[in-house]
Amino acid sequence: MKDSRTVKLGICGLGTVGSGTVNLLASNGESISRKAGVKLEIIHVGARRDNPACYLSALKVSRDIFAVVDDPEVDIVIELIGGTTVAKELVIRAIKAKKHVVTANKALIAEFGTELFALAADAGVALRYEAAVAGGIPIIKALREGLAGNDIRWLAGIINGTTNFILTEMESAHRSFADVLAQAQELGYAEADPTFDIEGIDAGHKLVILAAIAFGMPLDIDGVYTEGMTTIAPADLVFARELGYRIKHLGIARLTDEGVNLRVHPTLIPDTELLSRVNGVENAVLIDGSAVGPTLYCGAGAGAAPTASAVVADVIDIARELAVEQLPQVSGLGVAPDSIESVPIIPMARVVTPWYLRVTVCDRPGVMSRISSILSEHGISIEALIQKPAVKGESSVSVVVLTNRASQSQLLAAVAQIEALDTTMADVIRIRVDTLKA
Amino acid sequence: MKDSRTVKLGICGLGTVGSGTVNLLASNGESISRKAGVKLEIIHVGARRDNPACYLSALKVSRDIFAVVDDPEVDIVIELIGGTTVAKELVIRAIKAKKHVVTANKALIAEFGTELFALAADAGVALRYEAAVAGGIPIIKALREGLAGNDIRWLAGIINGTTNFILTEMESAHRSFADVLAQAQELGYAEADPTFDIEGIDAGHKLVILAAIAFGMPLDIDGVYTEGMTTIAPADLVFARELGYRIKHLGIARLTDEGVNLRVHPTLIPDTELLSRVNGVENAVLIDGSAVGPTLYCGAGAGAAPTASAVVADVIDIARELAVEQLPQVSGLGVAPDSIESVPIIPMARVVTPWYLRVTVCDRPGVMSRISSILSEHGISIEALIQKPAVKGESSVSVVVLTNRASQSQLLAAVAQIEALDTTMADVIRIRVDTLKA
Repeated sequence: MKDSRTVKLGICGLGTVGSGTVNLLASNGESISRKAGVKLEIIHVGARRDNPACYLSALKVSRDIFAVVDDPEVDIVIELIGGTTVAKELVIRAIKAKKHVVTANKALIAEFGTELFALAADAGVALRYEAAVAGGIPIIKALREGLAGNDIRWLAGIINGTTNFILTEMESAHRSFADVLAQAQELGYAEADPTFDIEGIDAGHKLVILAAIAFGMPLDIDGVYTEGMTTIAPADLVFARELGYRIKHLGIARLTDEGVNLRVHPTLIPDTELLSRVNGVENAVLIDGSAVGPTLYCGAGAGAAPTASAVVADVIDIARELAVEQLPQVSGLGVAPDSIESVPIIPMARVVTPWYLRVTVCDRPGVMSRISSILSEHGISIEALIQKPAVKGESSVSVVVLTNRASQSQLLAAVAQIEALDTTMADVIRIRVDTLKA
Repeated sequence: MKDSRTVKLGICGLGTVGSGTVNLLASNGESISRKAGVKLEIIHVGARRDNPACYLSALKVSRDIFAVVDDPEVDIVIELIGGTTVAKELVIRAIKAKKHVVTANKALIAEFGTELFALAADAGVALRYEAAVAGGIPIIKALREGLAGNDIRWLAGIINGTTNFILTEMESAHRSFADVLAQAQELGYAEADPTFDIEGIDAGHKLVILAAIAFGMPLDIDGVYTEGMTTIAPADLVFARELGYRIKHLGIARLTDEGVNLRVHPTLIPDTELLSRVNGVENAVLIDGSAVGPTLYCGAGAGAAPTASAVVADVIDIARELAVEQLPQVSGLGVAPDSIESVPIIPMARVVTPWYLRVTVCDRPGVMSRISSILSEHGISIEALIQKPAVKGESSVSVVVLTNRASQSQLLAAVAQIEALDTTMADVIRIRVDTLKA
């Protein structure tokens, strides 16, 4: 150990991540202190109630979490209460008291990060948030530091384990969305109100953070387009596979000459890509850098111990600096707050991708040619097509079309006309395709 | 930008990586300086000759590389000459002159790292080497910092692109090793003398570095067992696949109660693992941490631009510290030199794994039962077995056996007996199996 000093930690919040963090620091304390170069010690915990999942032993516990921030002995405040109101107040108070802060709170960083990083820079303290994106995968560090020599061209990630679990189960067991969602809720992989996950809001928060680091742009939660995955049927997963693709609910950030597009939506990706093989609750992020090319990072995106792994990595980073009496050397987003530059966000109407369309039609001659001529009239060409013979006793069949690149507005206009045909029996299912290439 | 200072770089060596680094700093200079928080400028290049792959323009170039180290203006010396004699002298001279050092030299770090990190710590300078392992994948940073909260239990990696390219081609085109090697040499993926790659020496250097960080142990090049991949035939790749596995040439470091085992050898891994799908010249490292579980890192393991990406990331890390006038906060191996602790290395004879055996036998009744009773006498049980009917006109057939866990000495004794049978027509091919579980 470089130093006989002790770095004193205050933990706010004793939920899943809070208790996981207490447990990790207790069980791995010796090796963690050895790596940090100083002794790390939790000296104060703030929580409305104890959590039987962790053993607090002789730790000082306050029911008022602000008592932790106000404790003059605490060097690093670890915010694990979640939410954006009390948490924001807590983090600001900690920064103003010149305490370093570690948080796992993606919503807080995505919504208020710009303000918080500027406050932290002014106060000369670190504000770290590795656990906010992709749980235990050190993706913030990889993007902000490991790939810092690259201009990032695009990134695409499975950054919500709940939706990936649902899609994996739908595909492997050929079960409906509603059915698998109920199972995910039983297993604790989905909340009682699953909106936050299945509508892409959680993934949107994480995407905004990744994009800000990747492109040195401000955190812009309003710039993200989000689309849920509730309209996907098991049949779409089968058709996608026949076409050489898998469907994943992805967060995608892509820089073009016009600006950046930030979007969360179901996406067909080639089944030759490792990303397409990331299944279950796993997370994975694929980043394309100008020098290194694509690099992929996979692992556990949630859970007590994996998230605690990321929280503790941040704590060790700060402690390593404190061990040699330093200030933080990396800005929150990888560039100094006054060096963040806006990048125009391209409206989704202008974002151009190939598309997968599934049209439910009555099985009558000429249907296919009417659909293809509508697409053609809108300047959309067909890349591949699946039309299966009608199943005996069913009056409708699925026509699946993989188009070449078309803008959303182009496509929606064509889809409206296809839906108006008297041979079209249901809303057209449309899913974007991404080849994961520059 | 935080600071109007300029951090001045000296580059030694203008081969593939050297010219790639010059080009990356030239093409991405503005965004790199923005991320570093200070201006980065190459002020001196040392190389025996120019390289037409990069444009040196007004740069000062010396034919004596030591002139770069002795240049009082240089803040960071970037060692890209390779080898371990001149490079070692150069790095020591730079450290003694209180200059920070970045190197891509895996052999130098693997063989002399312990001495060099101690010198750097004494001098208060950084010695960084991200590019030494897995090229552009920021694996050193992930292991040393991102996963620092974990006790690492094991890691396994495809850390040599040449052998992975050869295995991929052998499998996809069903071509012989010698045939694909010749192609790899033409493509520039393999050296004229390929020993360093195909015998696992290069992978051994990288494995030693990863293990030292993972386990906080000294760099111990003599502790690594290496086995080449020249005996693998296309038939083995087919049989492995039938059994639900793929064969990869892996570096594996695994901690057990007895100590650590460090080994590079062809390995059957389950085809359900993403690692088994990493093909061609790509590299990938799978790390199992006590808190986070397994995380996987994939990308380009070699090449001018990907390696330069890692070199420049190290330069930015140091410059970010210099921007706020700091000393390096992370020790070379993640723990301070005086905190490195030896871990016993388990001799290969005692390392226990499942095994794949391919026995070429003459197609005669009773052969299979003799093989299985020999295995049984040595306490080795059979997990799976493939015996194909003889091809018309061929007098020999392959018997493929997947065994349960057995030590190398147990297995070698059984194999010797099997090879002594008059029905055995050739040396038994034996490849270790790893399920990539704890």
